[in-house]
Amino acid sequence: MTARPLHAGAPARETGTEPEARFLRACRGLPTDCTPVWFMRQAGRYLPEYRELRSRYSMLDLIRTPDLAAEVTLQPLRVFDFDAAIIFADILPPLIGMGLKLDFVKGEGPVIENPLSRALDIDLLATPPATETLAPTLAAIRLVATELAPRGIPVIGFAGAPFTLASYAIEGGGSKHYIKTKSLMYREPSAWRRLMVKLVTVQTDYLLAQAEAGAAALQVFDSWAGLALGREDYRRFVQPYNEMLFGALQRAGVPVINFSTGTAAYIDLVAASGGDVIGVDWRMPLAWYHERIGGAKPLQGNLDPVALLAPWRDLKFQVDAVLQSAQGVRGHIFNLGHGIFPDTPVDAVRRVVDYVHEQTAR
Amino acid sequence: MTARPLHAGAPARETGTEPEARFLRACRGLPTDCTPVWFMRQAGRYLPEYRELRSRYSMLDLIRTPDLAAEVTLQPLRVFDFDAAIIFADILPPLIGMGLKLDFVKGEGPVIENPLSRALDIDLLATPPATETLAPTLAAIRLVATELAPRGIPVIGFAGAPFTLASYAIEGGGSKHYIKTKSLMYREPSAWRRLMVKLVTVQTDYLLAQAEAGAAALQVFDSWAGLALGREDYRRFVQPYNEMLFGALQRAGVPVINFSTGTAAYIDLVAASGGDVIGVDWRMPLAWYHERIGGAKPLQGNLDPVALLAPWRDLKFQVDAVLQSAQGVRGHIFNLGHGIFPDTPVDAVRRVVDYVHEQTAR
Repeated sequence: MTARPLHAGAPARETGTEPEARFLRACRGLPTDCTPVWFMRQAGRYLPEYRELRSRYSMLDLIRTPDLAAEVTLQPLRVFDFDAAIIFADILPPLIGMGLKLDFVKGEGPVIENPLSRALDIDLLATPPATETLAPTLAAIRLVATELAPRGIPVIGFAGAPFTLASYAIEGGGSKHYIKTKSLMYREPSAWRRLMVKLVTVQTDYLLAQAEAGAAALQVFDSWAGLALGREDYRRFVQPYNEMLFGALQRAGVPVINFSTGTAAYIDLVAASGGDVIGVDWRMPLAWYHERIGGAKPLQGNLDPVALLAPWRDLKFQVDAVLQSAQGVRGHIFNLGHGIFPDTPVDAVRRVVDYVHEQTAR
Repeated sequence: MTARPLHAGAPARETGTEPEARFLRACRGLPTDCTPVWFMRQAGRYLPEYRELRSRYSMLDLIRTPDLAAEVTLQPLRVFDFDAAIIFADILPPLIGMGLKLDFVKGEGPVIENPLSRALDIDLLATPPATETLAPTLAAIRLVATELAPRGIPVIGFAGAPFTLASYAIEGGGSKHYIKTKSLMYREPSAWRRLMVKLVTVQTDYLLAQAEAGAAALQVFDSWAGLALGREDYRRFVQPYNEMLFGALQRAGVPVINFSTGTAAYIDLVAASGGDVIGVDWRMPLAWYHERIGGAKPLQGNLDPVALLAPWRDLKFQVDAVLQSAQGVRGHIFNLGHGIFPDTPVDAVRRVVDYVHEQTAR
């Protein structure tokens, strides 16, 4: 794997009101020279240089050391022609500042030692500012933004949506059926409201601080709401808080991407809750999402990440299907429909990124 | 918990062409005196009498001993006013006859010791008749059908759909992302076709044998296709085989329920692949499914099983929402949108069954 030149052209600074970077232009629904590309979890285990660092440092150490987090963030930008970087971090660390004991256990994923089980646990959660509890991630954003400025590549900041964080905090880790979370929602609706508002408070502050540190766009991950909840529960127990969050983020002055999975059947509600760009999963074609949303917003997505494990013939078929389906969308950012898998061949990533740029060159 | 009288009225035998049992009438879209009710996994761990038996016998022992399987099947019919029994079995035993080594491991669920990993493994799979390999389940159906005949309560037979079985056989157990299954689909489409056709062969034979043994209706569980696959993959890699299966099952002469989860966004394709009744999950309202399907078929569903853990006020709210949403559906069978959870209070089940009967009495 050798370093490749990054795409030239876009100067570092925005001139006037229209952004120059391809990715940011697409976020605003403006014409671009070709479709911008980045991949969720593009800084991750499928890269040998990431695995090398990860063998020496724990997940939380990488996140909490600005130099290391910046290095990991930049790794994929050295080998692929991605149009944006996404800061290396995780959605769960904000819970640590709130009072939860989080660890990443090998083979198990994130584990919370003291999950929320009573209303009192919720009332005792702290809501400290991100500058106190998440300073290393903010510092890493500053480092990456400075490093990438000469090349005109924006860095994306991100955070978890309130439901996704709440489900981790209540279940104590990943979950299959979200029974505890939904039971709390139904049994103690007032405690649920207090929890969601606290999470909105913390996440708003964190995302605004990321924009201030140099993030040129923000992505909110509502990874689990769609797997856990049907339409009516989403409307009752999630949408009001996502509206609060996206409303508050308008102050950031940067585009906000609203990403969720498993929400195809109620993507209209998801889009109505806010965000400038709607990030969608691979379950339905982009044109389908576009139609449900009413066609007003740029879309980000939505190659099935498993397609990257397929031989080129089938992978190309699936990339073509995404591009074809995006033709009526004003502002398309090519991405996966979920995070990249660790087994993904590096060559497949390079081939897709270059292919999308070539095929969409105008 | 005391035994309650089962609802009276319907005689054991069908007279003329119209079935008498409330559940079977709804399956045919015929008027009923009230909405029939049964719950997926109604014979299971939430019942103390089941846990008592299970403490003495393994899962496979219960399934393979006709007297015990019949006893477990009948347990919920003694304490609740359910309108149908479902034979106590599991979707995976047919894989044993095909050559896979299956065990149920405590805390882990089903584990297959020798999962399919190459095309050769697929070609070596056997396709024995159900009368040879699944005789105990057929015998249990005969026992239950005889026992319930005087009360006019039908027994439902069931089996897994080809994709759901294939994913277990390839992943070796449950899965989160179905990476191996999808990789095989993409990499070896011809091996995939051979596997799916073999599964259709075995499952058709098994389901027809269940009808012959006395099952008055059949349910096909495609539990995982919707979680694993987007619309296009479903259309390419699953739908043709489900069509083969449902087409062949018309010979059974009993209604067939096509149940899946996570397929809301492409329920039109699911319904088009066959079945007399479409069983839907809890993610979207029944009226939504009804509209997408084109309104031609009876629906079964779709209370979120987690709702049974909520206090009555919220549970009633959710049951009312299901009944309200079913008003335009011709032929509604009240059920959960997925299997009942082990922590479900017995009283919540009784309350919902009786409430649905009362509220819908005509």
